Amino acid sequence: MTKLSAREIEDFLRGLTKRSDGEARFLVEELTDDFARLRMPARASHLRPGDTVSGPVQMTLADTAAWTQILRNLGLDAAASVTSNLNISFLRRPLAADLVAEARLLKLGKRLAVSEIRLFSEGDPAPVAHATVTYAVQRMSERARAPEAK
Amino acid sequence: MTKLSAREIEDFLRGLTKRSDGEARFLVEELTDDFARLRMPARASHLRPGDTVSGPVQMTLADTAAWTQILRNLGLDAAASVTSNLNISFLRRPLAADLVAEARLLKLGKRLAVSEIRLFSEGDPAPVAHATVTYAVQRMSERARAPEAK
Amino acid sequence: MTKLSAREIEDFLRGLTKRSDGEARFLVEELTDDFARLRMPARASHLRPGDTVSGPVQMTLADTAAWTQILRNLGLDAAASVTSNLNISFLRRPLAADLVAEARLLKLGKRLAVSEIRLFSEGDPAPVAHATVTYAVQRMSERARAPEAK
Amino acid sequence: MTKLSAREIEDFLRGLTKRSDGEARFLVEELTDDFARLRMPARASHLRPGDTVSGPVQMTLADTAAWTQILRNLGLDAAASVTSNLNISFLRRPLAADLVAEARLLKLGKRLAVSEIRLFSEGDPAPVAHATVTYAVQRMSERARAPEAK
Repeated sequence: MTKLSAREIEDFLRGLTKRSDGEARFLVEELTDDFARLRMPARASHLRPGDTVSGPVQMTLADTAAWTQILRNLGLDAAASVTSNLNISFLRRPLAADLVAEARLLKLGKRLAVSEIRLFSEGDPAPVAHATVTYAVQRMSERARAPEAK
Repeated sequence: MTKLSAREIEDFLRGLTKRSDGEARFLVEELTDDFARLRMPARASHLRPGDTVSGPVQMTLADTAAWTQILRNLGLDAAASVTSNLNISFLRRPLAADLVAEARLLKLGKRLAVSEIRLFSEGDPAPVAHATVTYAVQRMSERARAPEAK
Repeated sequence: MTKLSAREIEDFLRGLTKRSDGEARFLVEELTDDFARLRMPARASHLRPGDTVSGPVQMTLADTAAWTQILRNLGLDAAASVTSNLNISFLRRPLAADLVAEARLLKLGKRLAVSEIRLFSEGDPAPVAHATVTYAVQRMSERARAPEAK
Repeated sequence: MTKLSAREIEDFLRGLTKRSDGEARFLVEELTDDFARLRMPARASHLRPGDTVSGPVQMTLADTAAWTQILRNLGLDAAASVTSNLNISFLRRPLAADLVAEARLLKLGKRLAVSEIRLFSEGDPAPVAHATVTYAVQRMSERARAPEAK
């Protein structure tokens, strides 16, 4: 199977998460089998009083970064995989800047995939948050086979 | 100090999280010192393909429910308290219905407050998610005193 | 299938975790399909300077309480199930007393089981810790069938 | 303040966690301000049926590795710091070999310190577990000053 490229996954995400101005919500800057870097461009609606990026936005980016690692390794066949656990530590207040996620795949099992994600504000090397995300892997091809297997 | 009522905190939240149609995003249905029940009325924008409530919306409600427990016990003086850790397990797919949070305060320390939250779809007794939320307590009155104390 | 009783599971645990003095390490005080109460009697070796129960001992009791919920519902066939995630918040210093766990089963799926556990010191109603434990369910009977299914 | 060396912290740990045979339970192999590598030599009592390292032993090593990062940066003055949250994902079954922890300090605040830890079996590059550990920082020198500050 040819694996999806960063650009292909970015296009796939764009189709799912359209912004009203047509811009991409997530940019997939780098993607290999065990590493992904995503960027969420700064935009007014993420920002709260005090000019920072809200917690839910940080959680969404961490979760999406983990999901791209499943898409990369298993293809769109596994797009229906769902988050089973998300643990996030908020470390420092993000800047009013692009939010960048660096995700590392820790495990890709038949049932569970685990990624570790650091979030950064563009231009600052100290992480603003650290997340661990577990996905329950769901493959459409297995579901189709399931009735026969039983 | 007279503690804030469910209605007062609901009004406070409404001021912070206005919906474009003017409706409240969060209803505070019950509030005592160690228990809070919040409701997030179903609305189209929360719903994803397949008609369910997205993970970030669930996390937002859990986080907000924990925050109301700090406001209840410490007043608006502690409104600047920030989430330091959030752990959430997604248990089953929510229905396309109101999302209800039941939060129990496990600890209210000088520095940290910990709440345990179960999320339900209206009309279904099986929880859709379980979260543990830790807040780093920040009190404006202490900040003001801090320079003198040092 | 007749479900295992509290006593039967206590005996099973005793066989696995023998103390040198022959006493049970864990007592299973109450066990229904969705609730378990376990007790770990105070003993010198758990205690650290300052007379309290160590963190690893608390984690072990939480993990064991979740495991009994799997044994209760799925029988010894699922004894090989393994912990996939454990999240624990330490709330207050335990007393030098028996440690009691109250576990509630949040989900029992085909692949994952999730329990929520509160830990108490005997005689004190305020919880000393709160844990969420996820098990990856492994059934021996399924493993045996697996080769045919493929 | 001169910071403690790997050897000094290893000696300090040895004094707290004596094995009956007099050997060190934890070896501190590398220690800088933001990185620590600890090793727990394989020994029979850690091993369970099936010859692996138990979950509680893994949690203990992760927790100890995070603690050495506080001792390194704040000195023995902060030795009374306590774990407030530990989240661990068990990724694969460890070998019956030395267990190695690599800890990275994500945040060292006045109140909270957060470390991210990967655990490995000696000789295998795939991590067996991943933990995030939060410590509530307690400094003896501040406690002493506290009455005056109030």
